[in-house]
Amino acid sequence: MDATAHLLERRRRTIGPYSPLFYSEPLHFVAAKGVWFTEASGERYLDGYNNVPHVGHANDRVVRALADQAATLNVHTRYLNDRVIDYSERLLATFDDGLDRIFFGNSGSEANELALRISRQLTGATGVIVSDYSYHGTTITLAEMTTGLQTREPLGAHVRAIRIPDLDHDDRPEAEVLAETLAAVDDAIASLQEAGFGVSACLFDPLFSTEGMPRVPAGLLSAIAARVQAAGGFVIADEVQSGFGRTGSHMWGHQYAGVTPDLVTMGKPMGNGHPMSAVVTSEAVLDAFGSRNEFFNTFAGNPVSAAVGEAVLLEMEEHDLMGRAQRLGRTARERLNQLAAEHDFVSSAKGTGMFLGLDFTVDGAPAPQLARRVVEAMKSRNVLISRIGRNESVLKVRPPLAFSDAELPMLLDALESSLAEARDEA
Amino acid sequence: MDATAHLLERRRRTIGPYSPLFYSEPLHFVAAKGVWFTEASGERYLDGYNNVPHVGHANDRVVRALADQAATLNVHTRYLNDRVIDYSERLLATFDDGLDRIFFGNSGSEANELALRISRQLTGATGVIVSDYSYHGTTITLAEMTTGLQTREPLGAHVRAIRIPDLDHDDRPEAEVLAETLAAVDDAIASLQEAGFGVSACLFDPLFSTEGMPRVPAGLLSAIAARVQAAGGFVIADEVQSGFGRTGSHMWGHQYAGVTPDLVTMGKPMGNGHPMSAVVTSEAVLDAFGSRNEFFNTFAGNPVSAAVGEAVLLEMEEHDLMGRAQRLGRTARERLNQLAAEHDFVSSAKGTGMFLGLDFTVDGAPAPQLARRVVEAMKSRNVLISRIGRNESVLKVRPPLAFSDAELPMLLDALESSLAEARDEA
Repeated sequence: MDATAHLLERRRRTIGPYSPLFYSEPLHFVAAKGVWFTEASGERYLDGYNNVPHVGHANDRVVRALADQAATLNVHTRYLNDRVIDYSERLLATFDDGLDRIFFGNSGSEANELALRISRQLTGATGVIVSDYSYHGTTITLAEMTTGLQTREPLGAHVRAIRIPDLDHDDRPEAEVLAETLAAVDDAIASLQEAGFGVSACLFDPLFSTEGMPRVPAGLLSAIAARVQAAGGFVIADEVQSGFGRTGSHMWGHQYAGVTPDLVTMGKPMGNGHPMSAVVTSEAVLDAFGSRNEFFNTFAGNPVSAAVGEAVLLEMEEHDLMGRAQRLGRTARERLNQLAAEHDFVSSAKGTGMFLGLDFTVDGAPAPQLARRVVEAMKSRNVLISRIGRNESVLKVRPPLAFSDAELPMLLDALESSLAEARDEA
Repeated sequence: MDATAHLLERRRRTIGPYSPLFYSEPLHFVAAKGVWFTEASGERYLDGYNNVPHVGHANDRVVRALADQAATLNVHTRYLNDRVIDYSERLLATFDDGLDRIFFGNSGSEANELALRISRQLTGATGVIVSDYSYHGTTITLAEMTTGLQTREPLGAHVRAIRIPDLDHDDRPEAEVLAETLAAVDDAIASLQEAGFGVSACLFDPLFSTEGMPRVPAGLLSAIAARVQAAGGFVIADEVQSGFGRTGSHMWGHQYAGVTPDLVTMGKPMGNGHPMSAVVTSEAVLDAFGSRNEFFNTFAGNPVSAAVGEAVLLEMEEHDLMGRAQRLGRTARERLNQLAAEHDFVSSAKGTGMFLGLDFTVDGAPAPQLARRVVEAMKSRNVLISRIGRNESVLKVRPPLAFSDAELPMLLDALESSLAEARDEA
């Protein structure tokens, strides 16, 4: 048995055979630095996929902050500690007025759970509106509103899933598409009210990442938000994928989408891989929830997490990673547009900032196998990407924000060759 | 405004006024090493309370493992990585036969959520039995079964809470007390079945920590477990407080209590403060759940968490911290027994290993104010402890397992003086 087969067998006998692995032949990484992985074989791979190592794998500033604070003090928030307050102030300063209070957690699931818990308590309602191809976490409550991957739980009776339109796949006028979607939202609200659930919240990723980055009608999310708020519900922006400057133009996806949420949740890139998350909200919401619940989370807001989170923000600022994402994203998007024009099986380029994709369509139908072949062809060129969307037919290019001018041509050249290879195979 | 008042004000305006703080005058720690905190004032405090820094605050081996692995590679489990497998094997080796598969998470809440989710799916039932003064986490599902602190959510219709008896507060024969509790469990099961919920799980901390460490009838937990399993439900041992050798005699609280659970959850001490948790179960249960759900948790099982978890196990082993907990725990318990005999307001000493307490009772009634005064008196002697139980009348002495022969007399002497002070005030 070779080393990989042996490791796979040990893996099967511990974390089990269902723990997901990427690629038909999985990769075994032993190190990573910046935007480069090193495989057990010694081969290097360019990371065009992972958003968690936001400021780069093994970032020096983050590792130093982690190590220094862990060697000094790591404790819960029931003793006073200034690290968590320093970090809270710095993070909250990136939000618009009215979003100025924070709860910490340890994962995106915990953040979305808390946002939904707060919404249920403060509205007295239980109904929730989500997108019909989305994923917000692993808990029972979140599994009952999961439409974007397989869970055993059926959609909850109190959940309504709205199909998010994609103008790239809809020839009708934008206003007509918008009106149709908003009518579906109105129906969902009426249905939740008639069933006695009421409307506690809508929960959306402002970029609709899992959905495949649809090109939505202008003002869609703010119009949905207005309807939900008019029905007494809260608007939750799940910024686990869209936040921390990913769009290039805005620190937060809800700012990009032009919507003012009641609650913002964040996770993945927040600690560059250190398990941490947060819910940002208003003073009124925090006080209403805090005064009625003894709420405490053991690990959340510890000084090590705070030091790490602060290092991420400092690193973003020092290297203007958001500005870089905008600049590189524009270059990349132009090239993707060109590739879409050149390849008949690429119906459109998708995305913004450093979250980009190509939509594969053959004879008007989604082409997931082509997308899969391109992902594997990119791997054979030592570049990691993935795919998303309800048909897994949209390439997902979402590298660490530390991606630079040096690497972008490598990724785009590899993509061009991989498309040519996929076309030749097709 | 002095420095503490200023920090409190900044805290109020970020994480809010409801984020809990210990003590009437909160402590502001700036560093900690081993079992000692350093306050902003320069004063040192002996940690007789915190179980999270299991092998000691800022433990050298743990900090080195954390820093080295974070500087090398931190990534999710969808690429192959041997760190998580090495750690899984080492951790699973501490369990009895049949508990040989593991899911990782980032907090005790996530672990209990997953254990309940698995139980619901595999039993097809939703009913849950808990203790009537317990706490298992912050999510909506867990809030609906919380009885040990204030949550806005009422107890779920599908939840039954059983009063755990304490032979220290019950003069009847042990067999009679046991029979009464088991009759209550039988009633709960019948009630869940009649209401159509069925029995998905019982969820217990084997030490009944939040409950105040009651002295329970021999065989109580195994008898409850047998009834729940006979009704088709799963037995979940929440080892967030009782695990990792805390009892001194056993690595896991369920082994101490003589019960064989279907699922074991763990968190707090697992990573010495690094956010991590796990659910340990059988191959059959993992396969049944894994095959029906696309289950993945971004941060869980990353190589940094695995390296930290492994360092905790190695440190426990090298210094025989479990054996030490047993030895020191016996010495401490003897002295606590003596203190209970000497003070008429101390009705009994409680606990085992390095989880100990004194139960304060005046004229047959719980005496929480006395317990509070002793906790504050201990603080004035620079020793940290807390209190638990439905009346908060039981002292909670639960130091890092790295507590040693050098510190134990300091804690016990301070306790003796504090009891004398409380008696004089009373």
